[in-house]
Order: sequence, then C-alpha cells, then structure tokens
Amino acid sequence: MTTANARLRGGTDDLKEQLVAWRRHLHRHPELSFQEHNTADFVEERLRGFGGLEIKRLTPTSVIARLIGAYPGKTLALRADMDALPIQEENGHEFVSQAPGVMHACGHDGHTSMLLAAAKLLAARKDKLHGEIRFIFQHAEELPPGGARELVEAGAVDGVDWILGEHLSSLLPLGQIGLGYGATAASPDNFSIVIKGSGGHAGSPHRSVDSIAIGAQVVTNLQHIVSRNTDPLERLVVSVTQFTAGASNNVIPDTALLRGTVRCFDDNLRREVSRQIERLVAGITSAHGASYEIDYLFGYDPVVNDDKLTRIIEEVAGEVAGAGQVSILPPGMGAEDFSAYQRKVPGTFVMIGAGNPSRGIIHPHHHPKFDFDEDALPIGTELFLQVAERLLEWEP
Amino acid sequence: MTTANARLRGGTDDLKEQLVAWRRHLHRHPELSFQEHNTADFVEERLRGFGGLEIKRLTPTSVIARLIGAYPGKTLALRADMDALPIQEENGHEFVSQAPGVMHACGHDGHTSMLLAAAKLLAARKDKLHGEIRFIFQHAEELPPGGARELVEAGAVDGVDWILGEHLSSLLPLGQIGLGYGATAASPDNFSIVIKGSGGHAGSPHRSVDSIAIGAQVVTNLQHIVSRNTDPLERLVVSVTQFTAGASNNVIPDTALLRGTVRCFDDNLRREVSRQIERLVAGITSAHGASYEIDYLFGYDPVVNDDKLTRIIEEVAGEVAGAGQVSILPPGMGAEDFSAYQRKVPGTFVMIGAGNPSRGIIHPHHHPKFDFDEDALPIGTELFLQVAERLLEWEP
Amino acid sequence: MTTANARLRGGTDDLKEQLVAWRRHLHRHPELSFQEHNTADFVEERLRGFGGLEIKRLTPTSVIARLIGAYPGKTLALRADMDALPIQEENGHEFVSQAPGVMHACGHDGHTSMLLAAAKLLAARKDKLHGEIRFIFQHAEELPPGGARELVEAGAVDGVDWILGEHLSSLLPLGQIGLGYGATAASPDNFSIVIKGSGGHAGSPHRSVDSIAIGAQVVTNLQHIVSRNTDPLERLVVSVTQFTAGASNNVIPDTALLRGTVRCFDDNLRREVSRQIERLVAGITSAHGASYEIDYLFGYDPVVNDDKLTRIIEEVAGEVAGAGQVSILPPGMGAEDFSAYQRKVPGTFVMIGAGNPSRGIIHPHHHPKFDFDEDALPIGTELFLQVAERLLEWEP
Amino acid sequence: MTTANARLRGGTDDLKEQLVAWRRHLHRHPELSFQEHNTADFVEERLRGFGGLEIKRLTPTSVIARLIGAYPGKTLALRADMDALPIQEENGHEFVSQAPGVMHACGHDGHTSMLLAAAKLLAARKDKLHGEIRFIFQHAEELPPGGARELVEAGAVDGVDWILGEHLSSLLPLGQIGLGYGATAASPDNFSIVIKGSGGHAGSPHRSVDSIAIGAQVVTNLQHIVSRNTDPLERLVVSVTQFTAGASNNVIPDTALLRGTVRCFDDNLRREVSRQIERLVAGITSAHGASYEIDYLFGYDPVVNDDKLTRIIEEVAGEVAGAGQVSILPPGMGAEDFSAYQRKVPGTFVMIGAGNPSRGIIHPHHHPKFDFDEDALPIGTELFLQVAERLLEWEP
Repeated sequence: MTTANARLRGGTDDLKEQLVAWRRHLHRHPELSFQEHNTADFVEERLRGFGGLEIKRLTPTSVIARLIGAYPGKTLALRADMDALPIQEENGHEFVSQAPGVMHACGHDGHTSMLLAAAKLLAARKDKLHGEIRFIFQHAEELPPGGARELVEAGAVDGVDWILGEHLSSLLPLGQIGLGYGATAASPDNFSIVIKGSGGHAGSPHRSVDSIAIGAQVVTNLQHIVSRNTDPLERLVVSVTQFTAGASNNVIPDTALLRGTVRCFDDNLRREVSRQIERLVAGITSAHGASYEIDYLFGYDPVVNDDKLTRIIEEVAGEVAGAGQVSILPPGMGAEDFSAYQRKVPGTFVMIGAGNPSRGIIHPHHHPKFDFDEDALPIGTELFLQVAERLLEWEP
Repeated sequence: MTTANARLRGGTDDLKEQLVAWRRHLHRHPELSFQEHNTADFVEERLRGFGGLEIKRLTPTSVIARLIGAYPGKTLALRADMDALPIQEENGHEFVSQAPGVMHACGHDGHTSMLLAAAKLLAARKDKLHGEIRFIFQHAEELPPGGARELVEAGAVDGVDWILGEHLSSLLPLGQIGLGYGATAASPDNFSIVIKGSGGHAGSPHRSVDSIAIGAQVVTNLQHIVSRNTDPLERLVVSVTQFTAGASNNVIPDTALLRGTVRCFDDNLRREVSRQIERLVAGITSAHGASYEIDYLFGYDPVVNDDKLTRIIEEVAGEVAGAGQVSILPPGMGAEDFSAYQRKVPGTFVMIGAGNPSRGIIHPHHHPKFDFDEDALPIGTELFLQVAERLLEWEP
Repeated sequence: MTTANARLRGGTDDLKEQLVAWRRHLHRHPELSFQEHNTADFVEERLRGFGGLEIKRLTPTSVIARLIGAYPGKTLALRADMDALPIQEENGHEFVSQAPGVMHACGHDGHTSMLLAAAKLLAARKDKLHGEIRFIFQHAEELPPGGARELVEAGAVDGVDWILGEHLSSLLPLGQIGLGYGATAASPDNFSIVIKGSGGHAGSPHRSVDSIAIGAQVVTNLQHIVSRNTDPLERLVVSVTQFTAGASNNVIPDTALLRGTVRCFDDNLRREVSRQIERLVAGITSAHGASYEIDYLFGYDPVVNDDKLTRIIEEVAGEVAGAGQVSILPPGMGAEDFSAYQRKVPGTFVMIGAGNPSRGIIHPHHHPKFDFDEDALPIGTELFLQVAERLLEWEP
Repeated sequence: MTTANARLRGGTDDLKEQLVAWRRHLHRHPELSFQEHNTADFVEERLRGFGGLEIKRLTPTSVIARLIGAYPGKTLALRADMDALPIQEENGHEFVSQAPGVMHACGHDGHTSMLLAAAKLLAARKDKLHGEIRFIFQHAEELPPGGARELVEAGAVDGVDWILGEHLSSLLPLGQIGLGYGATAASPDNFSIVIKGSGGHAGSPHRSVDSIAIGAQVVTNLQHIVSRNTDPLERLVVSVTQFTAGASNNVIPDTALLRGTVRCFDDNLRREVSRQIERLVAGITSAHGASYEIDYLFGYDPVVNDDKLTRIIEEVAGEVAGAGQVSILPPGMGAEDFSAYQRKVPGTFVMIGAGNPSRGIIHPHHHPKFDFDEDALPIGTELFLQVAERLLEWEP
C-alpha cells in the first residue's frame, strides 16, 4: 500500500471507516457556495456529539468549533472548506451526487471529513491541552468574494497564532504531502474590456471606428506588461481569454469585448498591473479615436505561506508521510481564499496527495469525473493531529 | 413635382398606374433568390399578354423575352433582377409583404415592373425595329454565385451588342439619374480564417498556443496589405468584421475565428490580395507555432461600365431626367452580379433616383423600412425606351 | 526621327541650335536653389536682347518678363524653373557640369532654354497680341518652401488668367506629351517623431521605458491611417522611412527616432492625416508611459490641374505632338511647387517626353547620369507658342 | 569601522598593506582580456616567492598554482579573474590606470590580490593540509568565449571537488557578503537580425518590401516569447536594443538591423528561446514577402551555485562577516564565465561587499569612476581561508 511509509499515530487508522462514511454522505449531498445549510448542520451535529467543543455559527452556513484546553496557551486554527461546484457528476460509484448539476468536484467533502475526525480525536485530549484549537468549517471557498473573508471579518481567527489548511490533490500521488514556501497560489484578477468604436459598412472603414482592429492592437500591446514592464524575476501572467466582436462578413462592429485574467503572487504587482492595463487600453483607444469601458475584478489574494510555520509543518509532514514523501511545490496559478486568513495570522496551506492511477484516480479538480483516493483521508487527519501536537503544549 | 424636369416620351406616364399595380403585387409576394417561381410566372404571363415576344425560361425562375424586330440590326439587352431578401418588413403601407421574413428591400419589385412596362411599350413598335431587344428578367441577384452567371452560361446574352441594367436608389433623390465611368461596384470577396492554436488554462500560457494573441497579430499584420503592399492609386478595402474566440476568463481557447471582406475594382488585384492574405496568415501562424484554415469565397466581379456606351447613356439620361439631373457617381463598395454580363458584352449599370425625404423615403437598401418613391418608375421605364431608341435603328 | 509627327510651326525648329547652346551653357554652370544669380543674369540679358519685354527681378534670383500686347486682352503666364541639385554629375558629355557637386539633374536647364526661345519668338509678334504673356523664370523649385510661393507673394501672377508649366521627362519617350486631369503631383509632407522612453540595462526592462518596443508599436499602429481611417477611394501614402534607436546589445536606448513621409492629393486629407499621426503617437506613447516630440513639415501643395484648361492644352498638345502622342498620366507621388501658382490661377502642368533609350537616355531624374534628348526642346517651345496662340487673341 | 563585525582570523589583517600594494600595482597596469601577460608574470613571480606551490601556465596569460598538502584528501579550487576593460578611467586617485583607454573597472585587480594573499597564507600551512588547494588566476573573464572555458578544457579543474569564486561588489555595502542559491547570474545570449526587404521610393510602398514596417512587426511579435510562450515561473528577458534602418524621409530602406539580448537562467530555456526567435523571424518575414539573416551568439552559461556547497559557504561567510551581514541575493541579469567551472565541479560564486558611500564609492561596475573600498580585501581573503579550513581536513 502506498501509505505504508506513513507512520500514523493517534488512532487515525481506526477512524478510516468513519472518515469514509462521512465523506460519502457529504459527497451524495453536495451544496453550492453560500448554500451549505445541510452540510453545516451535519457538521455541527457531529461536533456536538464529540463533546467538549464550543460551537458557533458565525455565518449561516459555516461552523466554528473551539477546543479550549485545560491550561492556557497558544491558539492553532485548522481549516476545512465545505462547498461543492455547479458541475454534473459523471462518476459511476455508489455514492454519486444526488443533487443534479451539483458535485463535490474539488474534494471539500474529504476536507470536511478529515477535520471532523481531527476534532473528534483532539477533543478527547482536551484535558491535556495548553491553549486552544479552533476548527473552522468554512463555506463558499469556490465563489468570490469567498467565505474566508466573511469569517475573518466575523472574528473567526481573532486570537489565533497559526492556521493550517489542507487540500486533497488528485494530481499529487497518494502518500505524498506537498507544500511550498512563500507564494503558493496566485491572485486571480479578472478583467472585461469593451472597446467602443463605431460600426458601419465593411467597405467604408473610414466611416467607422474599427473596434476589431483596435481590439487587436490592445491585445498586442498588452503583451508588453509581462514582457517589458515587469521585473523578469517576478511571476506574472496576463492572458486575454475572450475576444468577441462582429457576426458577419460585411459589417464593422461597434464594439469588441475582451475578457481575460491576471495572475501573480504579489499584491503591489497586481495593483500596478491593473493600472497598467487601464493606461494601456486608454492610450490605444485614444490613439485610434475610440473609447472603452473596463470592469476589473480583484479576486482572492495570493496564498503566501509563512516560512517559519512552513518549516515546522514540513518536518511534521515528513514524520507523517515518511522519508522522501514530502515535496516542495512550485507556486501554482490556481487561487484559494485561504489567503484571507493569512492576512491576519501566519498560515500554511498544504496539499495531501490523493491521486492514484492504479485505481483510475487521474482526473483533475473541477472535472466531472474527479475523485480522490480515500486512503488519503487518515493522512490528512494525522497531519492535523501531529501539527497540533507539535505547535501546542500538551500535558504528558 | 421633383420629376418636372423629366421630358418623358412614349407614353410612360400613362403607364404609371400599371407600373404601381405590378410593383405592389410583387412587393406583397416577395420570393427569395433561386425561389422566384411565382414571380417568374407572373412576369411570363404579362409578357405573353403583350404579344410579339419570344419567351424562354433558361432557368426555372428567370424569364428571357426576345423582341425581334422586323428588320435585321443590332441587339440590345435590358436587365431587371427579381429576387427579394430574407428580411422581415417593418413598413406600414397597405402593400406590405405577405411573406413572413421575406421582403423586397432592395427595389427589385420596381425593376421588374419598369422592365415589364418597357417591354409592353417596345413590343408595340416591333414592326419598326431593326435588330432585337432582349428583356432579361433575372433571378437571384442577391445570393452568390448569382443568377446572372447562370444566365450567361445558358446563353442569355449570346449575340447581344450592349446591355443596360437599371437600379432604383433610395439614396439618390427622385428625379436624378446616376452613373459612373469604369469601375462602379466593387468585387466583394469574403474570407473566413480559423487560427488553430491549442487551448489551456489561462494561468499557463506556455502550455497553450494562444489563438487570441495570434489572431490579434493576424489582424494587425493584415493592415499592411492595404497600407504597404498596394499601389496607393488603387482602391482596396480589407476589413476584418468578426473576431470570435473564447468564452470565459480562465481558459485560453483552441481557436479564433476571423471573418472579413475584401473589396476592390480590379480582378488582378483581388487575386493578388487573396494570395497575400493566405501568405500572411501562414507566416504569422507559423511564427507562433499555430496552424490555420482559410475559406476564401470570391464574390461577384466588379461592375465596370463601358466608357463608350456610358457616354451615350449619359446623354440619353440627360434628355430623360433634364439638365443638371445626371450625376457621375464615384465607385461604390456594394456588389452586383450585373458584372457577369459585362464580362461578355459592353454594359452600363445606371442608378435611378428614388429617394424622397419629404415622403419619408430615407432608409437605405436592405433596411426593414426600405421604400422607394414610385414616381421613379416611369423614369426608369423611359430610360429603357430612349436608350433603345438611340442605340438601335427604327423605321420612322 | 521620333518627333516626325510633331507639326512644328512658328520657326521653333530654326531655333534648335540656339536652344541647345543655351541649354548647354546652363548645364555647364548649374546653381543651387536660391543661389541662381548667374543663371538669372544670363536669362535677363537674353530677354533684354529680344526687345519689347518689361523685365523685373521680384526676387534676387528669378526673372519675370511681361510681353504686353498691342491690344487689351487676357493674360497667360508661362513658367520655367531654373535651379540645379546638389548632385555630382557622372555624365561624360562635353557640356558636363563645371560646378563640383552641383548638377542640372532634373532638366531645369532645358525648361529655361525652352521658355527663352518662346519669349524670343512671341516677343517678335507683340504688335499682333491682345493681352499679355508673362514669362516666369522661377528660382528654387527643388528646395522647400520653394521659389513659387515667394513669387506668388511678390505678385508674379497678379492679373494672370491661366498659367502653363512644362517639365521635361526622361521617363516619357521623346515625341510624347503627357498631362493629367485633376491631381497630378502629391503633397510631400514629412514627419520626424522622437519616442522618449527611458534607457537602461537590457536585462532589466522594467526599469526602462523601452523606446524601441514602443516605436515598433507606433509604426504598426500607423498603418491604420491608410488601411482603416481613409476613404478607400482616396490616394494616400504614409511611410516610415527611418527607425534609428540604440547602438548595442545590452542597453535599452532612451529614445527612438522615426522619420517618414505622407503623400496625398487632397489638402483636407493631408491636414487630417497630420492630426491623426499626432493623435496616434500621443495615444501609443501614453499607453506605454513614454512621451514624444513630433516635427511635422508640410511640403508643397498637391499639383491639381484645371480641367477646362487641361482639355484645351490636351488638344493643342495633340496638334503639336501628333495623333496618339498625347498620354493622360496617372497622378504621381513626386512634388512640384507649381502648385503655388495654381492656388491663385487656373493652371496646368505638362510633361514633355525627352527619354530615348536608343541614345542611352534612360536614367531617372535626380540620377547622377540623368540626361534628356535635346530634340525635345523645340517641342516644348512649340507647345508654349501654340497654347499662347490658342488662348489669347491675335491679329491676323 | 564598517568591518568591525568581521571576525578575521589567520592574519589577513596583517596583510592589508600588502593587499593594497598589490592591488594598486595591478590597477596602474591594467591589461585587456587575453592580453594579461604582465599581470600573469606578476602573479607568477609572487607565487614563486611564496614557496611550496606547483605553478603552471596552461594558457599564455593565466596562472594555476597547486598547493598539494602533506596528506591525501579532497581538492578545493579558488578562483580570481585578472583582466581589465577597454574603458578610459576617470578617477583622480594616485594609482589611476597608466594604460590609456584600459581600466580595472570591475575589481579584478582586487580579486587577484585577495587570491594572492590567500595563497601566501595557505602555502604557509602546507604541511598540515590534507588534500589540495588549487589557485586559479584566470584571464579573460570579460570577453566571450572567456578564459574559464579555455582553462577547463586545459584541465584546470580536473580532480577538483569544489570551486569557490569571489567578486567584489561596489553595490553591496562594505562588510557584507552576498550569495545566492541556485541560479545567480544569467546567460547573456545576443542576437543580430537583418530584415531583408527591398527598398524604393517612399511614395510607392507597393514596389518595395518595407523592412521597417516588417521589423516593427518582428519587435512586436517577439514580445510573445516572454509573455505567452514561457512558463510564468521562469525568469527570462528578451530585449531588442537596437533598430537601425533608413536615413531619409523619402526612401524605404532595403534592410533593417535589429540587435538584442536574451537573458535567462536555464540552459534548456535559452536553447528553446533561440529556436523560437528564429521561428518567429522566419514566420513574420515570410508573411510579408521578406527574408532575413540571424546571427545568434550564445554567451556564457548561467552561474548556478551548488546548494550544498552554498549552504556551507553561507555559514562560513556568517563567521567571517558577522551576524546579519550575509545576504541571500536574488539572481542577477549580469553574466560570469565562472559558470564554465560549475559545469564540471560543484561551485559557488560569492559577492564581497565593497561599496562605501561615505567614501564616495558609489559607481557601478564598468563605470569610468568605478572604485571599491580596499577594506574589503582582507574580508575576501579571509573567506578564501576559512572556506578552505572548513572544507578540507587539516592537522591540528
């Protein structure tokens, strides 16, 4: 078995059956972002069953559980996200989604289960704990502006010293744990630009202001932002992903719509790029006698792991996963609202390997056939436990 | 009355009521290109009623009528087109189209009526005529490859010495006649280019071949064909009128579709431009590791009026419309399959003014509210008559 | 002989020897624009020798001679230009330029001679003349702002009804006369654009504003002026002819210099294009955070022949050159300050064929080996005479 | 004193006067790359004076000295470069360059002195040394293909286990030592592209193939290599630094010359970029009917420090420079042929802080007023010593 190297402690293996049961229940009953009512109720009910936890619903579909130890000390937050996606599942397994067009296609069902299991096991040791462990069952990770920001504003991480988030990954082999230092997930900002020319007969371009020709120049000139205006040591993407203009062979269209995305790992840079895009569009349209509208939507902040915390978690992960099973991951261009917690509290976001080609588990996240290997669940739970064990003080 | 200057002869005024009746009947019952069965039957029936004409249906929906004079001589062809357009009429007059989604929005109903009237009046003078007058009631002018080409191939202008085509124009004031020397209507060639890149996540452009960025370069580089590669004394338009690629903020699309048109007045130039477009698209896509498909559709040939014939018709038009009522028109970027006849026979294409703002007749051709002033009908008929009188010999 | 068809009258053939002598003298002693002192003295001396002329030096290096007839009437001006070019002659004939680096490489020596001969012959008929013939020996055609403008401002064409200018052409075969209707020579406006970025190390583009990348976008976007912004029926060229920036492999230069030219035949259009170029440069540089300077130099106006006068001269040319020897020339992209007279007076500018491959006369104007066939001189003189005969009244 | 924190051992401070004397001698007598004859002789003479070294001249202007210890063991190479630059010095100090137009403007005089001092001190301990220390006094670092490659090919690092290079930096404050993990200096590859069009009159662009307009498109399309074709996590610069074409307002030039540079830190990437540049130039020129020539010069390889060795040297540097005086430097876009050694042997390249604004030492390397603070010399020597002490075994 791939997880043979994982030196699990604390009884997480015994919980495997429980983890799978919870996960499959959640998988059958996925709920979209901001609509996780039944999920939150399910979680709250389980948590209440464990005993010893202070439970709050800071928002309608999230659950916060505080395990306040017998002794004073530091506070560690552990976070799972719980929402599903508007995707029609195409898997054939027996716990397939019962909600048409809604699917746990990113593993949040697993995250919720792992954190439930961790809560159960840690609650049992409450009398030995110095400090607090705060379990954050977060709603709406998939839908900006995201649930994390709401929870932070509602005080979910007030008084917290560290926060750990875990994410199952079907692209990382089962048995491995991955994490990165510094920036690990990009900020995903989106723009929508309308080039406003003036339409007319294709045979008389001088009576039009040609939104397509101008839009093409905008796309071409936009390349300079990455190639000329940005430090080559920085990591930045500016992609135009949609160009929609015109519908015939003989009419120059009034307007061209350009949509696209900006991804980077630095907050100053993303602000600067948004200004450069507007300056560029303003200049090019003015050059050609056109006008424009820009709609610029700043997405989540980049996820930036705390170096000191990450080094500790890397060591713990090595103990959990075994020698050679921890990878330092390069930054990824995906986004995560875990960054909202990191703005307040040193935090680290970790990937739990859950891919397994030998079991056909090969599809990427957000795919209608996405799945993960449930053998990863005890590993994620174990990591929560051991990080808590390491960071906090415990009576012997 | 605007037509006060027109010195009408030959009884065309008496025919006004008849012209209007025919026109309105046709307007009520428009038929699309290649489907003008009832229209052709209507025309044939009228022509048979006039007597003295040899009538043929060279194609299912066109009618050719030969008026063979009592004496040998030259042959003059007169041409009207008869098809309607796939447009839902928005006029409120009592003879509005009865066919949903089909409308005589370009005045072909008027053309047909004018030529019927000319046939009626000229047939009455058959015994004085030296030579032949050939009446061509053509189908499918609006839909490439067009009816003219079919008729030419079927022999419709064999033995013809000159051909005259007339077109009502809502943009030329009633009472005026317009014509041009040399090139008067452009060749309208259309292209459709698919840039074939390879799609992917917007955050990883290096794993894609970005069809939008490459398509933008194609549009930008295409400008050189007019600005750099073509004699500044030539008249050429290359317009990209559609750019369709992508549908989201986070996916680089596989392909970009560019459609557009090339308009010019010279056959060598249009062939050369088609080659340049392909060379350019091949070069740009190859520069960026993409591929392409081009679909290039050559439209009608440019309409090029015969100088000698046009000078004669200009004089006749001056007699019909009165002093100062004949304009020499600049070349237009619209297209006409009348050019197919001109490839075989010296021909001239003439615009009959039929606009009248005082009666609300201001909409351009192909507009759902297009109309023309019916007072123009006798003028067009009269021009047919007088050109026939001038070009052919007649017994006194 | 190629000129066999030319029906020369008035004794111009007898003047051939004289024409050649004058021309060769002038060719040996060329003078640059605004420095034609000896040339003007030579011309004045000859004119005084003819008798009957009122002679003025409106500017230091030009000569105006008025032949005021015995009777009142209209006034016709005839114009020749007299300046040479800063070119080192490479011909081997015996009358090669004696002035190092200066050469009559455009035939103005011939123009001066032809007009002198015409003055001599016409002066002899002064007593039969109704009206006036004004001979304009102009300086500085080759150097903007040109001598014509100075002369017009000094009153050289006050009271003139028509003006005729002639130009020998080595590209038109000897024996032919060429002329055009409407626009025949373009306005040559020049621009010089400095893109002002900010230089720096090639490895750190983000610390620079890259004048080369921005200059390239300016060139690319400038193509739209011809391809998109100008009526396809208009004739316009915008060419960037110089791009100078940087001198190494590792430094991004502060500035890029772009120079170029705009050629067209319409005064409104050239003003509009100058505005569009500035708008475009302003927009593109602003898009990229750079600034710019433009130096825009409007050259001569386009030469636009008067249609009525040209038709008359076409007929006279047909009589002079013989049937089939008159060509209607397309507009040319070269420039001529003859346009300055046309702003005041209906005028026509005519080309006198003077090329002759059989005698090795094949080089274009402004070439170090330029020459023209001297057999063309009597033809040009004859055209001056016969136009005067036709336009003015003469006693029998 | 700024170096107060540096815990110097081994008597380097005593050597300060000697270091300065050597350095100033070398500074007065700089020699260009591959011409360092006197410099090499000076070094050899000194080395021979130290005793105990095996000295070789593998190339005419370099010196290799082997200190072979009394006991067997590992081999550490220490490297200094010795060549000067073709720059006219503008400093006013008393040891200013005596060679017109040649100057030690990059500190190699200091490097040579530091390594001489290290050799002297280490040679004195020969009988305690296990293994070997190899002193490489390299020629021609400034001039590709560089001296390092020649020395490697001649066997200079055969049998070497580690290599350490030091470089004084006027931009790093005196007292600090800087080093980087992994890539620290870029590969500087240069290109020179000739766009071959065909020239002609600016008024007739269609008779030319416009090398400027095409060159501008090449520059514009080249931006895609960084912005679209390269992993955003990679660090790459492609800069066009020269665009030279045309010299007038009225002639489209035959050719345009584009020069520029490519900088990156990855060998596969630089090869890939060179291919992409050629593909792009081939495609764009072919798109417009032009041709091209590319001259692509691969410069030095990127300097990539060995992680393990660097970690050790970081520790030693901390001991030498004191707490908080060691900086981890980001990769720089400059180039160094030290990379040639790293291809064979694990190596680390270290910057020795030598800037001192309080003494006016602020000019960048390669500046005519470049200087460094001579207090840095003992620090660099000390680092050589202590690294040798740490990496090799020594008898007590």
